[in-house]
Parts: sequence; C-alpha cells; structure tokens
Amino acid sequence: MLAALAGGVGAARFLRGLVQVVPPEDVTVVVNTGDDDWFHGLLVCPDLDSVTYTLAGAENPETGWGLAGETFAAMDALDRFGAPTWFRLGDRDLATHLYRTQRLREGGASLSDVAAELAAAWGVRARLVPMSDDRVATRIDANLPGSAGVTELRMQEWFVQHRSEPPVVAVRFEGAAAAAPAPGVLAALDAAETILVCPSNPVISIGPILAVPGIRDALVRRRERVVGVSPIIAGAPVKGPADRLMGPLGIEVSCVGVARAYADFCGTLVIDAGDAGRAAEVEAQGVRAVVADTLMRDARVAAALARHTLDAVA
Amino acid sequence: MLAALAGGVGAARFLRGLVQVVPPEDVTVVVNTGDDDWFHGLLVCPDLDSVTYTLAGAENPETGWGLAGETFAAMDALDRFGAPTWFRLGDRDLATHLYRTQRLREGGASLSDVAAELAAAWGVRARLVPMSDDRVATRIDANLPGSAGVTELRMQEWFVQHRSEPPVVAVRFEGAAAAAPAPGVLAALDAAETILVCPSNPVISIGPILAVPGIRDALVRRRERVVGVSPIIAGAPVKGPADRLMGPLGIEVSCVGVARAYADFCGTLVIDAGDAGRAAEVEAQGVRAVVADTLMRDARVAAALARHTLDAVA
Repeated sequence: MLAALAGGVGAARFLRGLVQVVPPEDVTVVVNTGDDDWFHGLLVCPDLDSVTYTLAGAENPETGWGLAGETFAAMDALDRFGAPTWFRLGDRDLATHLYRTQRLREGGASLSDVAAELAAAWGVRARLVPMSDDRVATRIDANLPGSAGVTELRMQEWFVQHRSEPPVVAVRFEGAAAAAPAPGVLAALDAAETILVCPSNPVISIGPILAVPGIRDALVRRRERVVGVSPIIAGAPVKGPADRLMGPLGIEVSCVGVARAYADFCGTLVIDAGDAGRAAEVEAQGVRAVVADTLMRDARVAAALARHTLDAVA
Repeated sequence: MLAALAGGVGAARFLRGLVQVVPPEDVTVVVNTGDDDWFHGLLVCPDLDSVTYTLAGAENPETGWGLAGETFAAMDALDRFGAPTWFRLGDRDLATHLYRTQRLREGGASLSDVAAELAAAWGVRARLVPMSDDRVATRIDANLPGSAGVTELRMQEWFVQHRSEPPVVAVRFEGAAAAAPAPGVLAALDAAETILVCPSNPVISIGPILAVPGIRDALVRRRERVVGVSPIIAGAPVKGPADRLMGPLGIEVSCVGVARAYADFCGTLVIDAGDAGRAAEVEAQGVRAVVADTLMRDARVAAALARHTLDAVA
C-alpha cells in the first residue's frame, strides 16, 4: 500500500504516472483542501477536483485546471447580474460543485464521502481523501498595490484574482489547529509501505496538509519511508507561484530549500537531473538525494518518475 | 397604474403584449411562486423566470420555458453523479438560480429583492413581484400508476417528472395560510386602475396567488376593476395541464368554468371568439363577458388582446 500527499496540477500529473506503475487501488491520496472556497454559494475544491479529473483523463491539459472541452455559459450569464466571475467555473465543472454542495448541505455527507463518490463516478480507482473533513482555509497576507499596510486575501483571491502578484508577507491555515485528519488518513500513513510527497507547492499545497494536527507527526514517525519529489527545478517552479511564496517565507527557492523544509519528516528527496550539482547540499540537510528527470512533459515521463521515486526508498 | 396576476407561459406572452400598449413602468405583475422548488440546492422560480425572460425577449419560444439558445452541459454532467436531472436547467438559466440562491442565503435579500434585481439585470421595466416572500408550495395529491392510494407530489414532480399524467385528487398550497403578500402587492392592487388576471392556469397559477391571505379580499373589493382572460378556449387549455386539474376539482373545463371560479372577484372575463356562443352562460355567473381573439399566435395578437382586455373595463 502507498500513500501520497497531493496538491493540484503537479501532483495530479505525478499521480497519473504512479497509477501506471502500481495498481491504483493500492494508492491512498491525501489531498490539500486549504485552497477550497465558496463561489456563488457552491463549495469548490480545486485540488481534489484536479486530481480526480486528471486521474479520470478528463482534465484540460492546457489550462492546468478544469475539464477538457469545457464551456462557460453559466459564468457568462452570471456577468449580467454583476456577480464576481473572476474564478471561472465551467458548465460541466459546475455540476461537480452543485453535487458536492448539496450532498454536504442536505445529504448529511462529509467531504470525504463526497470525494469518494465523485472519484467513483469518474471511474477513479485510487482512493482520494481530503486532508480533513473540517474546513481549513489558506489565507495570504499580502501587500496590495495602492493599499497601505497588509491585506488578508483568501488563497484564490491572491492566486487567481490577483494572479499571484501581490508580494506575500505571511500565510496562515485558518482552522487547521482545530481540524482533524479525515477518516483513514492517519491509518493510511501508518500502513503505507511508502509515503510520497508529490511535486506540489511546499507552502500552500503540502503546508496545509502538514498543519492538520497528527499528520506531520505521522510522517515524522515514518521518515525513512517518506520520499518527496522537488517541485523546484533549477531554482524555479515548473508551474504556479511556489517561488512567490517560498522566498518571502524564508525558504530558498531550490531543491535545497525544499529539502530543508521537509527534512524533519522526509528521508529522501527526488531532485531533477539539472539540479544534480546540488545533491550534496540536499544531503547536508540530512535528506538523501536521488536524481531523476522530474519535468513531466508527458505521461511516459511521469510514470518513469513515479517508478524512480518508489525505487528511491525500495 | 395597472396590476396583473400571472403564472408562467400564457401570462408571459400576454404581458409582452401588454407592455406594447401601455408603458411597462406602469405595470406591477404579481407572480405565482407556488411552482417554486429546489433543485441541486438551488431555488428555481419557474413563473418569475418565465415572465422575466419573456419580457426581456430572451425566452425559448419552442419549449415555453427557459432561455433561447440554451445549452445543458451542467445537467448532462450531473447525470454522471446519479443526481436527478428530470427538471432540465440550462447552463445560462443556472446562473439565475445560482445568483438568486446566494442572494437569499448569504446576501440577506428577500425573494422580492432578487426578483427586482434579476428583472433589472434583464432590462425588464415592468415591476415583477412574487406573490409572497414566504414559501408557498403547491402540492398535488395524485393516483400514481402502480401505487395504492394517493401520493403527494410536489408540483414539478407531477407536472414535469410525471408529465401531468397521474390523475389529480386534490391540490394544496402548503404554507399559504401563514404567508404574507410580498411588500407592495396589496398597495398595487388597491391603487391599480385595472387589475388583470392573465390567461394562466386557474388552479395552480392563479390559485396560489389567491390563497395568500389578503390578496383575494383585495380583488373582491376592486371586483369591478378586475378583468380576466380565460385560458380555456373551446373547452381546452392552449398549453399546459389546466384541464387535468380543473376537471377533477369540479371546475368545468371551459370559459364558463373559469367565470364561475373567478366570479367573486372578477367582474369581467375576456373569452375567445370561438366561445362567443357561451357568453350568456358566462354572464349567468354574474361576470360580464367580452369576446376577443385570445389565441396569442404572435406578439401582435398578444398586444391586440391586451388592448381589448383593458378596453373591456375602460
């Protein structure tokens, strides 16, 4: 059995590779929910949905979010009413949020229940579990242009509405201290032969998962069976704003910075071949460095990377 | 100033004619909300939306409901999750329900507020008011094939899901006794030079409006200024299931039956030219009969009918 900690796009691509080299049924994916937010009265869970859609082969490969072949008639119509539509929800994607919100509100379901139902409906055989059924909300304090002092932004406001541009001062995971790991999360981490930390944003994808009481401790206990994949290649994220979060929070934007941030719970880190020259610095953090091709240009590379990552702690 | 009681399609077509012969700003439309129901966690108000879309010139003239040029990507996607999708909500129409539901739930708005906002967003200049801001729900007791005894159906279950087929035993307007007319309804009825009862289903379109305490009394007081248009032509409704409701409830399916049902509050009834032979029977109910072409084949006929209807009590 395997467990994986996952954020959005990078994790989803890695996991698609993983389920090509191990039986999907053997994989429990613990997914970040700090990005979740409410739009138009609907609960949207970007990372859970990205992983679900990607494992279903239905994701939009160009945008990195949403479904392929999506339409936006409902969003366009909402513009007429002056509703804020900067967070674009496709028409088919809306169905996911309608279903989820109603199941939570009226069906007595937990987020875990709904994640499992959605995954099953999409034919996803890996087990997808939110990090917590409790609400944890990533908040970003940033300097907005034209605003004096610091403004607290919701994660999607900073990331989508403001295009990750406002300089970051601090990141908080609201509700994390009072949250419990979702049912099965700790058991999956305890039982896993290997625990994978997917190539996701260390601050706002992996960070919220680690902030749920009990999860980081479970990883620390299994440190020798935990292997991460650096999302940073040659000093820059492959996609997304990791650099704009790591730097201001004092994490070097490099595989070495990732190793330092993960050192207490992650015994091995897979770094890109282009970063081979920094392997000694990674190992100086007490983290074993393994070199591989980590740029997932296609599913074949992703599968090879997954194989390498598993072999790194075999 | 004019007031009108309205249901869905027939009323919407009549009102589109009306606003061609009087300034739309002079018209207050009191709309049935007994058909309203929740789908996928969203409040859907079929009659308010039909009137809004039709007065905006955006309705689908073929179906009689929804928007022209609509797509159904979200409904199709909901099928994947096994959600009940027999009530088809188009993608653009969904925006209306998303906006309304969120304004009610989180914006502290009343249904009246939202009806006014939606109408304004669509450029509708007539004033659209729900009969009540309180929930009134039409319930239909019917004999379902294969079921022993009587089954209570929600209005849309009977009308859409069961295609108006199960024989009707009784109709109730749940919540009506405790409902208050929406702000401005009674004032509009009191102040109106003429009160129009649109050609709508007497049982489930006009009936719920009359069931809100205070409204029928207001009409009774103004009886000589109230003029109705029979929705029944030559013993059959133009569209919709009025015959399947009137008959079982003891209302003759004819303009005479309509006159009898409306006699206490409606001094004048416009009947179709094809029913001219029954004018004496209408008048025997104490209701003045005026003959006109009531089959609204196009906007021109609807405008002429509106003109005739106003003239009938001029």
